[in-house]
Amino acid sequence: MTEHPVLIDGKWRAAKAVSTFQAVNPATGERLNESYPFSSWDDCDAALSAGARAAGELRRTSAESIARFLTRFADRLEAAKARLVEQAHLETALPASPRLADVELPRTINQLRQAAEAALEGSWALPTIDTTNQIRSCLEALGPVVVFGPNNFPFAFNGAAGGDFAAAIAAGNPVIAKGHPLHPGTSRILAEEAFAAVGECGLPSGTVQLIYKIDHKSGERLVSDRRVGASAFTGSRTAGMALKAAADGAGKPIYLEMSSINPVVMLPGALAERGSKVAAEFSSSSLLGGGQFCTNPGFVVLFAGEHAEQFIEEVRRAFDAAPTPALLSSSVATGLAASVTALRGAGAELATAATQAVSGCRYPNTLLRVAGKDFLSHPEQLQTEAFGSTALCVVVGDADEAEAVLSHLEGNLTGCIYSDTGGKDEGLYARLEPLLRQRVGRLLNDKMPTGVAVSPAMNHGGPFPATGHPGFTAVGIPASLRRFAMLCCYDNVREHRLPPALRDENPNGRMWRLVDGRYTQASCIPTPT
Amino acid sequence: MTEHPVLIDGKWRAAKAVSTFQAVNPATGERLNESYPFSSWDDCDAALSAGARAAGELRRTSAESIARFLTRFADRLEAAKARLVEQAHLETALPASPRLADVELPRTINQLRQAAEAALEGSWALPTIDTTNQIRSCLEALGPVVVFGPNNFPFAFNGAAGGDFAAAIAAGNPVIAKGHPLHPGTSRILAEEAFAAVGECGLPSGTVQLIYKIDHKSGERLVSDRRVGASAFTGSRTAGMALKAAADGAGKPIYLEMSSINPVVMLPGALAERGSKVAAEFSSSSLLGGGQFCTNPGFVVLFAGEHAEQFIEEVRRAFDAAPTPALLSSSVATGLAASVTALRGAGAELATAATQAVSGCRYPNTLLRVAGKDFLSHPEQLQTEAFGSTALCVVVGDADEAEAVLSHLEGNLTGCIYSDTGGKDEGLYARLEPLLRQRVGRLLNDKMPTGVAVSPAMNHGGPFPATGHPGFTAVGIPASLRRFAMLCCYDNVREHRLPPALRDENPNGRMWRLVDGRYTQASCIPTPT
Repeated sequence: MTEHPVLIDGKWRAAKAVSTFQAVNPATGERLNESYPFSSWDDCDAALSAGARAAGELRRTSAESIARFLTRFADRLEAAKARLVEQAHLETALPASPRLADVELPRTINQLRQAAEAALEGSWALPTIDTTNQIRSCLEALGPVVVFGPNNFPFAFNGAAGGDFAAAIAAGNPVIAKGHPLHPGTSRILAEEAFAAVGECGLPSGTVQLIYKIDHKSGERLVSDRRVGASAFTGSRTAGMALKAAADGAGKPIYLEMSSINPVVMLPGALAERGSKVAAEFSSSSLLGGGQFCTNPGFVVLFAGEHAEQFIEEVRRAFDAAPTPALLSSSVATGLAASVTALRGAGAELATAATQAVSGCRYPNTLLRVAGKDFLSHPEQLQTEAFGSTALCVVVGDADEAEAVLSHLEGNLTGCIYSDTGGKDEGLYARLEPLLRQRVGRLLNDKMPTGVAVSPAMNHGGPFPATGHPGFTAVGIPASLRRFAMLCCYDNVREHRLPPALRDENPNGRMWRLVDGRYTQASCIPTPT
Repeated sequence: MTEHPVLIDGKWRAAKAVSTFQAVNPATGERLNESYPFSSWDDCDAALSAGARAAGELRRTSAESIARFLTRFADRLEAAKARLVEQAHLETALPASPRLADVELPRTINQLRQAAEAALEGSWALPTIDTTNQIRSCLEALGPVVVFGPNNFPFAFNGAAGGDFAAAIAAGNPVIAKGHPLHPGTSRILAEEAFAAVGECGLPSGTVQLIYKIDHKSGERLVSDRRVGASAFTGSRTAGMALKAAADGAGKPIYLEMSSINPVVMLPGALAERGSKVAAEFSSSSLLGGGQFCTNPGFVVLFAGEHAEQFIEEVRRAFDAAPTPALLSSSVATGLAASVTALRGAGAELATAATQAVSGCRYPNTLLRVAGKDFLSHPEQLQTEAFGSTALCVVVGDADEAEAVLSHLEGNLTGCIYSDTGGKDEGLYARLEPLLRQRVGRLLNDKMPTGVAVSPAMNHGGPFPATGHPGFTAVGIPASLRRFAMLCCYDNVREHRLPPALRDENPNGRMWRLVDGRYTQASCIPTPT
């Protein structure tokens, strides 16, 4: 069994490892026959030094070269599709099709291409020119970005290819990818393709680096090291909060996507009008990917009555009828069991029939319910994230109780409100929407949150503890690039010394710049001094 | 002696105080005959509850009303000019004219008017519309903002009228102002005028609140309270870091402007060409306002040689010839003495003649010098901020040493490079600029940093520890508004339920929106679904 190398400082080389690990096929529970290194701090240290050097070189690299790399990488991923899908399926048990081959990989490739276009076009940096005062500013790269990929999206959020990777590179930063240990082979192939594209496009060889596994202490040192520019993390709240504390203490930006139960409010008119359709939509979204989506709808507010009971009954049937999915790992399954136990301990009751037993990587689909007044007795515990195919129905007696429930919600990525199409729920909507709005990043109407379009208008973010800052999004280009940048102002700087984006002449004729208060793609004529 | 009330929940009412305090006239050292409350946590708690209510009401308030308030407040400040200048002069010893009456108050009024225009026009919120996917997003208010004003700008950074106040209100948030205890009377008059304008414009009565003094623990509770939206702080690094830790731990955004020595690099060609002019510019900027500017140039890199010696000599003469200013307080003077002692302890030598003695609020203008190689032995201590009219000249032997010095700099608000106008310094500039660029928010050429134009392109921010996040600016509209906002996405939300900025019709015909990838002021025609 070969032990795979890490990618540090432009070389695939043997790790300075403290031990090794193997991935597991969640579908079978069997260890895969590949060995990966558990890196010591030495590997992190070397990656940081190489990253800092690459950052300096990237500052002198044109946007065209960076865009070419992202495009070439996207092309290579398209060519490597069969191999990637096979490996990711083996390591995650997520369906090869449609999920991995037809949804997630195309999305990942699309993100890279959108990021390339954003880098090339340049408006993401908010170039701003004040010709009267001769002050000009824009966002610029800020240094090596450490990207911690999560377990649940082996491609689209992978540290070596996903949204954070694409955004950090497009903004001009090198990336140190910390692959998720549940799918090291997938991360390896992605980094191999990225590194090959780095070479083809002549970018600094330290632009992309990969390590697979480190201990908590090394993670905390990484995000707080003086050589790092910023970090991005997608994962559990516990791990995220520890990294956040370390980065915050050192004054280093860190963008975290930690946890979300994605509340859905079913107004009475919606259920009266199209209850079965809504129940089917909800069940399907909730069970998607074994419920292992950041935007999985895990919390439904229903108004007590016949339609609510019918909704619960239909969802229960769907949950019981659906196969028990292989989750991403046995620890996801045991974590889910613990969450369900916590929810039940706080007063939630089982609606589904299955015994709550973990078997390897499997845990049965679980629907829970609780009365609104009981939720209000334990609002914190009853917001425990149950990562997997589990949902909690909160049945409220009236609008006042619904208001109270929503007022207790923590920050979430998404929140949905379903309402009658004819307008019968307008009054309730007006009362409840403001409470939900301020607690979620993305508010949906009559639509489930699991689809996250890579749109300039997307917000895949939200108030703490869903993320660490409510002003940023991890998905959606160009906004996601702005996380990995610093605001650079040039005051009275001679024209030839300015970055191209801030010179009088619009560098590509299509970059949008705020010139003397107006957005324009034109070049600007400075006021004579 | 009357004890002044606090402004909480729409009323000037007696504080729940633990004690009282009086301001001091720094010019005379005499206590002023007005008593102000040192508030207990009870006052903070009441302000937070009232602020949270006001935040809810402001969400239903039009941008027009908010703009009207900011404009009316600006008008009232203009009318109250004589009273304001007299009070601020009494409490700070800053010159009534030109500083307070002709520079700082007009600037403060101008900021409020610019903020009003930004609120009205609306582009600050980066409204983004994707008609194909029916996803729309923009920045929106996020809740009560606590603003801690600093000691050195009684108007322009005051919690009840300054840049953070204007930005937070324009973004739709109520403000809880924590006035600086060195100028309570100035803060009181500003808050009185603000509150009168609140009443005239029919804004929620809790839109503006004022407390004067609280203990550290209450400050930390304030910025981390669940009812708060965000905080802004301008002041010392010690106080800022304690607030940052508290806010970070609770996941609450906090924007800090903490400390900056504002390095200036004098390239040899500039001194050879116009050494006396540059020395005069530097001396004047460094002594301005008793050196008590966030952007005070306190650190000069010079290349060893005759021109450097002449520069030091000319600045020394200017420092010795200038009167010893009354600083903002005796603690500023003793703090400055301690900083100078620390700098000398780390190897800096005195160039000026004055004895280093504190007298009341006065401390002599002090020029220090150190060789580059000695700086490199104690780079951290030799970056101690000396808040007041003190500067340190670092004399480097060559470009390599200059590179090493710049590589050791912490994050700063500004950095300047002076160079020969004919291009003789181009090579050195190209070597040194990248090192300085990544360590400062605003890079200047041939210009001192103390002027901070309120320009859309301004960055009054910079890498840690100058601030807490390198992507944000405290000065410059519209960018400064974006600190006090959350990204709100609407996915498939019915048109009539959208905020005006995101509806098909451009709400005022002049708001710039990113519609399907193009900035436009036009209304948008959604794709038929």
